[in-house]
Amino acid sequence: MAFPMQFLSDNAAAVHPQVWDALHRADAADTPYDTDAVSRRLDEAFSALFGREVSALWVATGTAANCLALSTMVAPHGGVLCHREAHIEMDEGGAPGFYLHGAKLVLAEGEGAKLAPATVAPVLDAIRDDVHQVQVHAMSLTQASEYGRSYRPAELAALTSLARERGLKVQMDGARFANAVAFLGSTPAEACGDADALSFGCVKNGAMNAEAIVFFDRALADVARYRRKRAGHLQSKGRYLAAQVLAMLEGGLWLANARAANAAAAEIAAAAAGRLLHPVEANEVFLRCTATERAALRAQGFGFYDWGPDAARFVAAWDTREEHARALARAIAGL
Amino acid sequence: MAFPMQFLSDNAAAVHPQVWDALHRADAADTPYDTDAVSRRLDEAFSALFGREVSALWVATGTAANCLALSTMVAPHGGVLCHREAHIEMDEGGAPGFYLHGAKLVLAEGEGAKLAPATVAPVLDAIRDDVHQVQVHAMSLTQASEYGRSYRPAELAALTSLARERGLKVQMDGARFANAVAFLGSTPAEACGDADALSFGCVKNGAMNAEAIVFFDRALADVARYRRKRAGHLQSKGRYLAAQVLAMLEGGLWLANARAANAAAAEIAAAAAGRLLHPVEANEVFLRCTATERAALRAQGFGFYDWGPDAARFVAAWDTREEHARALARAIAGL
Amino acid sequence: MAFPMQFLSDNAAAVHPQVWDALHRADAADTPYDTDAVSRRLDEAFSALFGREVSALWVATGTAANCLALSTMVAPHGGVLCHREAHIEMDEGGAPGFYLHGAKLVLAEGEGAKLAPATVAPVLDAIRDDVHQVQVHAMSLTQASEYGRSYRPAELAALTSLARERGLKVQMDGARFANAVAFLGSTPAEACGDADALSFGCVKNGAMNAEAIVFFDRALADVARYRRKRAGHLQSKGRYLAAQVLAMLEGGLWLANARAANAAAAEIAAAAAGRLLHPVEANEVFLRCTATERAALRAQGFGFYDWGPDAARFVAAWDTREEHARALARAIAGL
Amino acid sequence: MAFPMQFLSDNAAAVHPQVWDALHRADAADTPYDTDAVSRRLDEAFSALFGREVSALWVATGTAANCLALSTMVAPHGGVLCHREAHIEMDEGGAPGFYLHGAKLVLAEGEGAKLAPATVAPVLDAIRDDVHQVQVHAMSLTQASEYGRSYRPAELAALTSLARERGLKVQMDGARFANAVAFLGSTPAEACGDADALSFGCVKNGAMNAEAIVFFDRALADVARYRRKRAGHLQSKGRYLAAQVLAMLEGGLWLANARAANAAAAEIAAAAAGRLLHPVEANEVFLRCTATERAALRAQGFGFYDWGPDAARFVAAWDTREEHARALARAIAGL
Repeated sequence: MAFPMQFLSDNAAAVHPQVWDALHRADAADTPYDTDAVSRRLDEAFSALFGREVSALWVATGTAANCLALSTMVAPHGGVLCHREAHIEMDEGGAPGFYLHGAKLVLAEGEGAKLAPATVAPVLDAIRDDVHQVQVHAMSLTQASEYGRSYRPAELAALTSLARERGLKVQMDGARFANAVAFLGSTPAEACGDADALSFGCVKNGAMNAEAIVFFDRALADVARYRRKRAGHLQSKGRYLAAQVLAMLEGGLWLANARAANAAAAEIAAAAAGRLLHPVEANEVFLRCTATERAALRAQGFGFYDWGPDAARFVAAWDTREEHARALARAIAGL
Repeated sequence: MAFPMQFLSDNAAAVHPQVWDALHRADAADTPYDTDAVSRRLDEAFSALFGREVSALWVATGTAANCLALSTMVAPHGGVLCHREAHIEMDEGGAPGFYLHGAKLVLAEGEGAKLAPATVAPVLDAIRDDVHQVQVHAMSLTQASEYGRSYRPAELAALTSLARERGLKVQMDGARFANAVAFLGSTPAEACGDADALSFGCVKNGAMNAEAIVFFDRALADVARYRRKRAGHLQSKGRYLAAQVLAMLEGGLWLANARAANAAAAEIAAAAAGRLLHPVEANEVFLRCTATERAALRAQGFGFYDWGPDAARFVAAWDTREEHARALARAIAGL
Repeated sequence: MAFPMQFLSDNAAAVHPQVWDALHRADAADTPYDTDAVSRRLDEAFSALFGREVSALWVATGTAANCLALSTMVAPHGGVLCHREAHIEMDEGGAPGFYLHGAKLVLAEGEGAKLAPATVAPVLDAIRDDVHQVQVHAMSLTQASEYGRSYRPAELAALTSLARERGLKVQMDGARFANAVAFLGSTPAEACGDADALSFGCVKNGAMNAEAIVFFDRALADVARYRRKRAGHLQSKGRYLAAQVLAMLEGGLWLANARAANAAAAEIAAAAAGRLLHPVEANEVFLRCTATERAALRAQGFGFYDWGPDAARFVAAWDTREEHARALARAIAGL
Repeated sequence: MAFPMQFLSDNAAAVHPQVWDALHRADAADTPYDTDAVSRRLDEAFSALFGREVSALWVATGTAANCLALSTMVAPHGGVLCHREAHIEMDEGGAPGFYLHGAKLVLAEGEGAKLAPATVAPVLDAIRDDVHQVQVHAMSLTQASEYGRSYRPAELAALTSLARERGLKVQMDGARFANAVAFLGSTPAEACGDADALSFGCVKNGAMNAEAIVFFDRALADVARYRRKRAGHLQSKGRYLAAQVLAMLEGGLWLANARAANAAAAEIAAAAAGRLLHPVEANEVFLRCTATERAALRAQGFGFYDWGPDAARFVAAWDTREEHARALARAIAGL
């Protein structure tokens, strides 16, 4: 960790004090797996958040959350339509192939790593309706997208309508769902539209190692419980995961943390308007930036990832210090 | 939790204070996945413990530890020989079928849920060496066994010799490995014999949600790293898992905790000698016990599992209070 | 083929002349896969045979027929209840693990390799209704069984009732279904009871390399068509498979061939009454028979399999010559 | 079959008379699976053809041949590099996902549906060497390609050299391998280069339902035998498949048939030079062709597939009649 001011990723940030408190409270003896009193509060907490009856399961990682949800929607001989740059396609080490037993990821394009009816429909239309080609069973959306872009409610409505017409289930990867909600200023329900399941990300937003899968189609949750155990993801001390998730929900911590991260990203973006590769709609900033410029920033103590030869990615986290964001903004402006 | 004195299982016990301390220390910023400074200490720590060069990976659950290790040893068309009452056969929700892509569990008998050459060899001999029958690629042993029985070093030597003769890899489920070592008074190396991989259990012994897979055949670890990610078990804040595992090793906490649990079990066993279904060689006590007797014990505030119609299982954990164990011993003696 | 009089198995018998004729007729140009005129006749032919609307698919082997059918009934996290000596458990090289993506075979006992409610119910009852144990999704029956035993219609009714009560689908392995029907003197519908799918065996009964999967639950056939292609079992010249199957049905060839094989087996059995390990209810004869006696039979030119150290198996095929069966009967009587 | 002159595909052509003869000869009693005298001749026959020691297995379909071979080369967590328009990607109903247990197809471009070092290397280079991205374990080439293009020996050498440098196994889909050899005028060995396994296509070239997998890396064949059984592709009357394959080899029938098909394609191509979408290097002709022109050809009795809105595909088979090819050539010239 040579760089005192880190913008590498939000995925290794510290654990929020309120999460620590909740973890310690969970230390009291209770029953194993998800039979404990803490785990049993998840459904109610998420039902309140989304304003409808849902079933919610804790799980340790976003990859597991996405793949477990998809495994309840897609038969092994089916496919999942997703963006060519979706995390499930690019960065999950083949987990969808494992969890879906060889089902295929069917790729579509779309600006800002977002799908759109205009890019999805042609891909679906090109699949012959016969046994020689893999038929798509579900669509996976990422909110916010891999480039920190947030789907507007109307965009979601158009996509999920298309999905329903084609008989597809809808899964949402919400590793940064909180950041999208914070950006949109919408309700959580509006930000996930008519999805059947949402990976409600906590790890990047202040938790230690707990995400929630929120099932709007509750029948899928009953399958997911078997699949979670089968995948070795049913922790015996599940109360420590449930506690993290509930801590994120309590008092709107999830949203407050996301707002803090988004604000830091916005400050950086404001200083770098001419360099932005993507509008900043969450907590990630992608900038055009030469190798020389990147070296200059690193010399000033900023850590971040190169994004190809001519760009850089900066991610703000819930615990990014304001003065670091401000310093980075100044440094970028001064390039 | 109606019963103030719990002997249901060790799998939901509290987290040990030293583990809490280590978790908090891990809160300092670091790099993601297993690239952080804490995770990078695992190999060395386990190499020191076992007196040879090993590779060690953290993972959140024992099911994942067992199945990931086996997935590096067994081709999808192969099989795993294990005891008919092994956890991988009875209680992992089909996880081996998932992780091994349909490989078969081939079952053998054995007293105390322990395998022995005399029970293993006939099973292997009965498999025709042709493509119509599934060929066994690995043997899985559980130390201590499902009935709290510990393999002696000589027993392990006989079994692993047989495995080598037959060209089998050897995997050890050590969910209660610490309890076996504590009982045997042996070195860790002696208690796991010539295994290729060991699931070194921590969760039942004071950790929150971290186990270690120790690879004695280090080439297997390189495969396991891919499989861990693919299974959604590569946590981005892996340092919190590494910290738990290291905390267990530091100062011999793992052994001290296991000794405490074993001592409690021994106290109970001493009071119940005539009722023991199995010699107590770890932290589990299986007793003959009528329904009436079980009701009487529960009326006195003891929580435990029925074990069929005429028996009960009592498990002591690292945090079982001495006075509870003593009280249980008295209550059993007084039945 | 050192033995001029073969009773090794029915699985390598010659192809029946009527099947050859049908194969040659199929040589006329037609469209690929299962779109040809011959394949399109299968549904109607089997609907007529079973007196109800069914969907029928050709496939090259019995293993594929069984596993494809089961794959439409059993989720990857589920299980199939079958007899401990069922072909899918013993002799299909792990194919169910492959086709069912790691689903588990749950084994039950039963006289003559036949299941019965009394052996099935306890196995189902012992499975805890939780995510730690694999839940059974389907039951697989073999008609006639691995020991040449035929389920009576009342036995099937009892088993399938039990299956329905437990929410299980029912699959029937009918590699020797024809022999069972011939033995029972029942209708085909009576001999398969309330199964959801039947592997209607042809290869052992005069075909070259075509079996039929008959789906009584026709929705399953729609899934099976995708799975067949995905398994590499959709032959482009499918008309040659359809032709074989139809040839078996035409004029009742399937039943005539099975009667011939059964008659030969009956003749052998009649001469060996005191030695029978199992009543002969199809075309297989299992005899107590010492090594010396087996050597004596082989010296007279009879080919057959040892069945453990003290027994032998003799299988009659559609083309077993009467004089060979008679000769074998005499030889056994003369031991 | 409304069109008397068929150019739809070679995949449903009639069976060659010499194949019929061989099938009938195989009717003689023999042992099951691949233990019969005919099957046991395959290794020798292909070793002679390729001038080196190989192991050869029969299997019923090209999809099974490709996927079984790949399953011996690629771990479930790995990937297969292939052309974006390869049959395994486009037309096998997800069979690679099934046979490879979720391994990923990694796609590359290339003119004429052929890979080239210049298109392959960047794809490999873009894969980060970490557990988050699927690592490629094998390369799959198609000879002749989906557009009827044949790899020259020097092209193969460049590709397989690259594969070896990167540690990749090489599999060749040779559904139309014979047509490529016939076009190249090379030896079979030259036409498959340094592949580890070749799907030697027979079905499109005069056989009924038998292909051969030729393993140049013979150790892979030993794995493939288990996988073949496990996939339900080990036919009990395997001698009928072996007979077809041997019939194709005997007297060079495979090459004679391919030459006939190629000659018909060449005749068509010669008449359509200005319309060719791809050079004709096997037995397939892709033409620019308006909807009106296609209707005109169909009105004259020619059957063929549309290839998108402005093109058509014509495939000649071993049994395409010269006068049909000539008539088609005239009709195209007259458009």
